[in-house]
Amino acid sequence: MSEYAELIRRWKEAAILGSCGGVLGWDERTYMPRNGSAHRAEQMALIARLCHEMTTHPKNGEFLTAAETSNPDDDAKANLREIRRAYDRAVKLPPDLVEELARVTTQAQQAWTDARAASDYSKFQPWLEKIVALKRREAAAVGYKDHPYDALLDEFEPGATTASIRALFADLAADLTPLVAALLASPRKPDRGILHRDFPVETQKSFGRMAAETIGFQFDSGRLDVTTHPFCTGLGPGDVRITTRYNPKHFNESFFGVLHECGHAIYEQNLPGEHFGTPLGVAVSLGIHESQSRLWENQVGRGQPFWEFFFPKAQQAFPCLSDVKLDDFLFAINDVQASFIRVEADEATYNLHIILRFELEQAIVSGDLKVADVPGAWNERFRKMFGINPPDDAKGCLQDIHWSFGGLGYFATYTLGNLYAAQFMDRVRQDLGGPQLDDDFRAGRFGRLKEWLTDRIHRHGQRYRAGELCRRVTGRELSHKPFIEYLRTKYEPLYGV
Amino acid sequence: MSEYAELIRRWKEAAILGSCGGVLGWDERTYMPRNGSAHRAEQMALIARLCHEMTTHPKNGEFLTAAETSNPDDDAKANLREIRRAYDRAVKLPPDLVEELARVTTQAQQAWTDARAASDYSKFQPWLEKIVALKRREAAAVGYKDHPYDALLDEFEPGATTASIRALFADLAADLTPLVAALLASPRKPDRGILHRDFPVETQKSFGRMAAETIGFQFDSGRLDVTTHPFCTGLGPGDVRITTRYNPKHFNESFFGVLHECGHAIYEQNLPGEHFGTPLGVAVSLGIHESQSRLWENQVGRGQPFWEFFFPKAQQAFPCLSDVKLDDFLFAINDVQASFIRVEADEATYNLHIILRFELEQAIVSGDLKVADVPGAWNERFRKMFGINPPDDAKGCLQDIHWSFGGLGYFATYTLGNLYAAQFMDRVRQDLGGPQLDDDFRAGRFGRLKEWLTDRIHRHGQRYRAGELCRRVTGRELSHKPFIEYLRTKYEPLYGV
Repeated sequence: MSEYAELIRRWKEAAILGSCGGVLGWDERTYMPRNGSAHRAEQMALIARLCHEMTTHPKNGEFLTAAETSNPDDDAKANLREIRRAYDRAVKLPPDLVEELARVTTQAQQAWTDARAASDYSKFQPWLEKIVALKRREAAAVGYKDHPYDALLDEFEPGATTASIRALFADLAADLTPLVAALLASPRKPDRGILHRDFPVETQKSFGRMAAETIGFQFDSGRLDVTTHPFCTGLGPGDVRITTRYNPKHFNESFFGVLHECGHAIYEQNLPGEHFGTPLGVAVSLGIHESQSRLWENQVGRGQPFWEFFFPKAQQAFPCLSDVKLDDFLFAINDVQASFIRVEADEATYNLHIILRFELEQAIVSGDLKVADVPGAWNERFRKMFGINPPDDAKGCLQDIHWSFGGLGYFATYTLGNLYAAQFMDRVRQDLGGPQLDDDFRAGRFGRLKEWLTDRIHRHGQRYRAGELCRRVTGRELSHKPFIEYLRTKYEPLYGV
Repeated sequence: MSEYAELIRRWKEAAILGSCGGVLGWDERTYMPRNGSAHRAEQMALIARLCHEMTTHPKNGEFLTAAETSNPDDDAKANLREIRRAYDRAVKLPPDLVEELARVTTQAQQAWTDARAASDYSKFQPWLEKIVALKRREAAAVGYKDHPYDALLDEFEPGATTASIRALFADLAADLTPLVAALLASPRKPDRGILHRDFPVETQKSFGRMAAETIGFQFDSGRLDVTTHPFCTGLGPGDVRITTRYNPKHFNESFFGVLHECGHAIYEQNLPGEHFGTPLGVAVSLGIHESQSRLWENQVGRGQPFWEFFFPKAQQAFPCLSDVKLDDFLFAINDVQASFIRVEADEATYNLHIILRFELEQAIVSGDLKVADVPGAWNERFRKMFGINPPDDAKGCLQDIHWSFGGLGYFATYTLGNLYAAQFMDRVRQDLGGPQLDDDFRAGRFGRLKEWLTDRIHRHGQRYRAGELCRRVTGRELSHKPFIEYLRTKYEPLYGV
């Protein structure tokens, strides 16, 4: 067997073991009984350690070097580039750190769930302290040029730096902040109440499932379950799972969450299964991943054509909508307002929630902000940004699961996703014709969009890095402008600004 | 660290990885989407191979020998005895066989589910052929004195042999067959129809859950889900899961299944968690395990005192029972009849179902019976034994999941469990007082029984082998007599024979 083939065999094996950890992680968040937490932490720690051992095995280094110098074809080149990157990162991490991070973050997720339910930061603080210490050790081990946060960002968005994202976000904020201010100042307001009527959970379940199937989520290769914090996880070919949470007094919470997770899942379900376990079978980055979820949730799912198809069905399913006009419904689901919860925020203010976290995390990782002071710092920044005061930590710094699983450096990818989504959607509309695409949606047909996305993005796995993929798909560097343009086009007529 | 401590550390680690496979196996049977099957087979194969590697590591052999000769205390002696047994068995198994068995049985379970649903043996036959070939290889690798079936039995019931079980079952059959014949010939019959009225699934769920909690299943350390074939699986300390299936037109199917699986689960939940991963933290054998499930399902759950407590609650939950008298209900749930499905059989004929399988499996493993001829052989034996003809393979040789997961040699432990249960229950009634125990049950108190079982059986893990445990707990060798006596005491008054 060639060195390349042997490297790939070994790399796939580690990925199969990693995907076992994926099943355990899914189970932990969906169905594991609470007393199973301590043992689950041991299981996760062991799998993390074994995966790390398999990944960093010296033989891999030898095969990698040999394969790199033996005239690889294009597929192999892409795989070797990303395996090199992952290998070089992994060998820098001490095994005990890898194991400890897995153990601590498994138990911390349970602690976070309890702390959030009780809105009691003190229940989570000791865990966050452990996690921050471990992530700082990780940053030091991986190394960085300017900021330890770079080393963490790089895990989720290969190639991204704190400075580059800061610059991009500064441009975005410069255009977004006045736009948001104008929208909030407008006297026109939708009737928000129509989304807070009675939406029975069982009906939400079947309606959400129907929508998921219609846009292209394949249920024989996936599942939809209920969790505190919704997520999507690809466990391997033929097995991609999403979750949601239901609020019987709020239509948006589950429905747009399902569309969002479906966007992730459609990406995962359309990665090339034959490349499972190698970079060619893996999503590009979290930013690109998020572009897919935000595209289906917002660009598609909050648009008029989509609802011309789905609104009559929603009225049939939910009698409480029978007296509602489509225009009023559309305005309500595109309501811009200052609010506490990121995942329920509108498309415009959402990015301010992200910028807050992006800045806060840098201070936490650098040590400028002590973990004990996070609630205070959160609330102060929040007040400055939105002019309102989080009533408690559950609606403040405890709202997100990410820190509990060690996802420091993760949040920025959400706004990157919004920007990519707008830029991709611009291009889709050029390629497939904007009006024709709207006609598709009006008829409940989402296949052409899905095929375009699969052809341009999903099927390539990590063949191209995010920046190159963006240039290849859209012909341009990533910019905040298509997104701002999209927001203006949507919101200015609604709010008359 | 001493050799013993190091051995235990390594053994526990393999057990933790094995318990990851446990989670994947549970998921596979409960929630995995059907297209996930191929990848799951790869995951299971890898975990099986890695566990086997960890278990059979030459260092384990060295530490084991060193520990055996360094004056171990009683705990260590018991652990070393069983680790020696498992190690010697494991090192005889070729790694590729271990991996292939895990891979094939994972996919075969999906094939079995489909074949059973379609009652089409041809869909399962190629898988069973593969499994039988692999299990024959396993028997040859492990070695045996008299019959290859010995090597397979020994996996589930350490120390048992084909000859010893055959002798025990012959004694049992000699007493059981005329008893069953007399019961079947009796003109007295219960009104079976009362158990086939309308039992809404949601109500069955809450009623079963209430019963499970009442007898001692801890839901914060476990779950109850729905599967085609009910099972119990201990995934580690604090996480023991059971499943059931609901039939809206049959009360027994789920209810007694839940009691049965609770019996297994109460055993698992009361093993000493601090010994997890070592023999002292593991159940003795499947026969002893089954004694616990049959004890709660039958000795307790089909008895009058139990229903004096639960029947009024059942009448409240299920209006269809409101006109039923307790005596008629008790007669109906203790109905003895020739029937096709083992798991729905009464306590007397149940053992004939087992004897059929026990004999058939020996012929399959020896090669006397070809896999292609299993349905014919099954139906012929069934007709001879019960005087009725299985209408299709779903109600015949396709009814059980066991062969699909490689469980050849497993069935005998069910009847061993019945015999142990009767002998244990005799002893409990001596120790705690029979009438006082009945009073407990009448008042819905099951704690004293559970504590007795935990004290005498659960907490010891594998400190004693099944035979020794039986002698220690009951003062006697295992015999079929207490079981026959139990059946006579219960059935003769009901049937007037």
